[in-house]
Amino acid sequence: MTTPRFTPLSQSLPASVPFVGPETQERAMRHAFKARLGANENMFGPSPRALEAMALAARDVWMYGDPENHDLRVGLAAHHGVAPENIVVGEGIDGLLGYLVRLVIGPGDAVVTSDGAYPTFNFHVAGFGGALHKVPYRDDFEDPDALLARAHAVDAKLIYLSNPDNPMGSQLSAVAIEQMIESLPDGCLLILDEAYIDLAPEGSAPKIAPDDPRVIRFRTFSKGYALAGLRVGYAIAAPELAQAFNKVRNHFGMGRIAQAGALAALADQDWLGAVKAKVVTAREDFAEVARENGLKALPSATNFICIDCGQDGEFARKVLTALANLGVFVRMPGTAPMDRCIRVSLGDADALAIFKDALPRALTAARA
Amino acid sequence: MTTPRFTPLSQSLPASVPFVGPETQERAMRHAFKARLGANENMFGPSPRALEAMALAARDVWMYGDPENHDLRVGLAAHHGVAPENIVVGEGIDGLLGYLVRLVIGPGDAVVTSDGAYPTFNFHVAGFGGALHKVPYRDDFEDPDALLARAHAVDAKLIYLSNPDNPMGSQLSAVAIEQMIESLPDGCLLILDEAYIDLAPEGSAPKIAPDDPRVIRFRTFSKGYALAGLRVGYAIAAPELAQAFNKVRNHFGMGRIAQAGALAALADQDWLGAVKAKVVTAREDFAEVARENGLKALPSATNFICIDCGQDGEFARKVLTALANLGVFVRMPGTAPMDRCIRVSLGDADALAIFKDALPRALTAARA
Repeated sequence: MTTPRFTPLSQSLPASVPFVGPETQERAMRHAFKARLGANENMFGPSPRALEAMALAARDVWMYGDPENHDLRVGLAAHHGVAPENIVVGEGIDGLLGYLVRLVIGPGDAVVTSDGAYPTFNFHVAGFGGALHKVPYRDDFEDPDALLARAHAVDAKLIYLSNPDNPMGSQLSAVAIEQMIESLPDGCLLILDEAYIDLAPEGSAPKIAPDDPRVIRFRTFSKGYALAGLRVGYAIAAPELAQAFNKVRNHFGMGRIAQAGALAALADQDWLGAVKAKVVTAREDFAEVARENGLKALPSATNFICIDCGQDGEFARKVLTALANLGVFVRMPGTAPMDRCIRVSLGDADALAIFKDALPRALTAARA
Repeated sequence: MTTPRFTPLSQSLPASVPFVGPETQERAMRHAFKARLGANENMFGPSPRALEAMALAARDVWMYGDPENHDLRVGLAAHHGVAPENIVVGEGIDGLLGYLVRLVIGPGDAVVTSDGAYPTFNFHVAGFGGALHKVPYRDDFEDPDALLARAHAVDAKLIYLSNPDNPMGSQLSAVAIEQMIESLPDGCLLILDEAYIDLAPEGSAPKIAPDDPRVIRFRTFSKGYALAGLRVGYAIAAPELAQAFNKVRNHFGMGRIAQAGALAALADQDWLGAVKAKVVTAREDFAEVARENGLKALPSATNFICIDCGQDGEFARKVLTALANLGVFVRMPGTAPMDRCIRVSLGDADALAIFKDALPRALTAARA
């Protein structure tokens, strides 16, 4: 008998990972990236007040963080006009998605998502034995009608939708989301991943009553607040659902520095506003680089843009590889026809200059 | 139909949590603790080099941490004389225990632990539907013979053992652990929680071949390295087991500051040695306070001591409550007869003075 005796489910899981990190690529290439534009990180950086709070918290790092994340939950509740009981904080949206799938999905339970949407969510569904059903994007947008129709057909317990969308940057209107919620099948929970909403135009977020049991919203400090390396995400949900996370979560999983940094970042909404303005400008600047090279940038409500490389996935993949060889880290959608694009995170002036220099050379290499 | 439709397992789980944090108690009491001696945190603090590394990493906190934890794994491998493939890093031992239980335990699978051992491990076993079997401590020590006998009897997939032991502070010899491994039932994995081993006497750690599939060792930066608020734990295991964590773990769960701080702390073994010396002195100082009050401190190989309050659990609980009212946070074992003790983390001179002042008053209050 081999030791340990893994469960049949864990034995069946692939050892592959949702994302290979840029550091892994750097180690394989034996050179560092000059511009890190692949993970939709926010190069404009976090609030100085968050940095100060983290430095202060570091003096107390010998102590565990509060397992209830009390102060951060109270701050988030005030920010969103909900109760602290509506908020659950965790190790990034990734960590929270894992807990949610665990709470709801057992072997064979149906889950619906879009083909090409967030791989880490799919990783969690597979990890708990769920049956994942994928519907196509429609014109580079996630398709609420198709998601709903499939959810009705397969009796889905969960639907996953990111809005604004990753990897395409497209955005459904608040009204479209609100209508989608009204059309959910009985007993189906909508997972609304709003990781990028802090960088979207004002008025993008749908109105959802905080005790509505049909939807759970996910937010993060990794994008707008530029704290990806802290790993702080949160969900807003009806109290019964938010409290259910306590049955399974890693109660001491949020460190002291993470909680303090996130709370200070939240308090500096002026900084977030300034970052958003920089992102809007960078969106135009990076799109202009695409146009200069005869390519089209898709509209985006996020801190990244998809650039249509004008051919198929094989060609876009060549462009991506050529960019990597030139020291520029980008990613791309994994599914046709969206994989005609590369996905470029919006960086600062230095990153823009590097990208502007590299893109025409990468296109030449890909066409060779 | 209610939404969401939780799994039967998650519906069956209690909403209770393994540990109520000191912050929760402070909010309920409406006053802060003057001395935080309940969570076995290390008041002597982390290496200044770890603080420097964290400050440096904070500048880059807009970037995700390396999902492979490469540099930290390489550093840990060198430190332990194993390969990086033997190491898995995660969100504290708590987080890693959850992943391990998930990989191995399904509904009804047998697990053996000691009655009164780590509640968070039990939380994970319950969370995945395992059948937990408990054997008694013997004279304040975990009992390898009883653990093994029960594991044979119930065909256990996992045995949990902490050495040095929490909550009692007692320690089995390296030879005893090595013999236990040789006597494990076929197909049974020993979880050896060595959270406190960095503070134990030299030579305490058993010799285990890095590719031995029968045992997985857990270590942490929370105790000896005084970085509880960073949340970094790791396991040393045969490569097949260590790599299996990649099937289920939160790949981007380790932040950038956490990885950098842990690596720098590891590199400063002189600091760890100095902390250990302070702990040894504090062990004697705190035990002396117990003796001055007519109580006995149990021998300890850790940064905490159990003080035998001389009566039953009810009395010790009164002492604990009285200490809390006097501003001193301690915990106690949850199971008789160990619950005749309070468990006191070893603090610095200020904490010692506060404890020395509070203990006689708490005893008077408990006896009233």
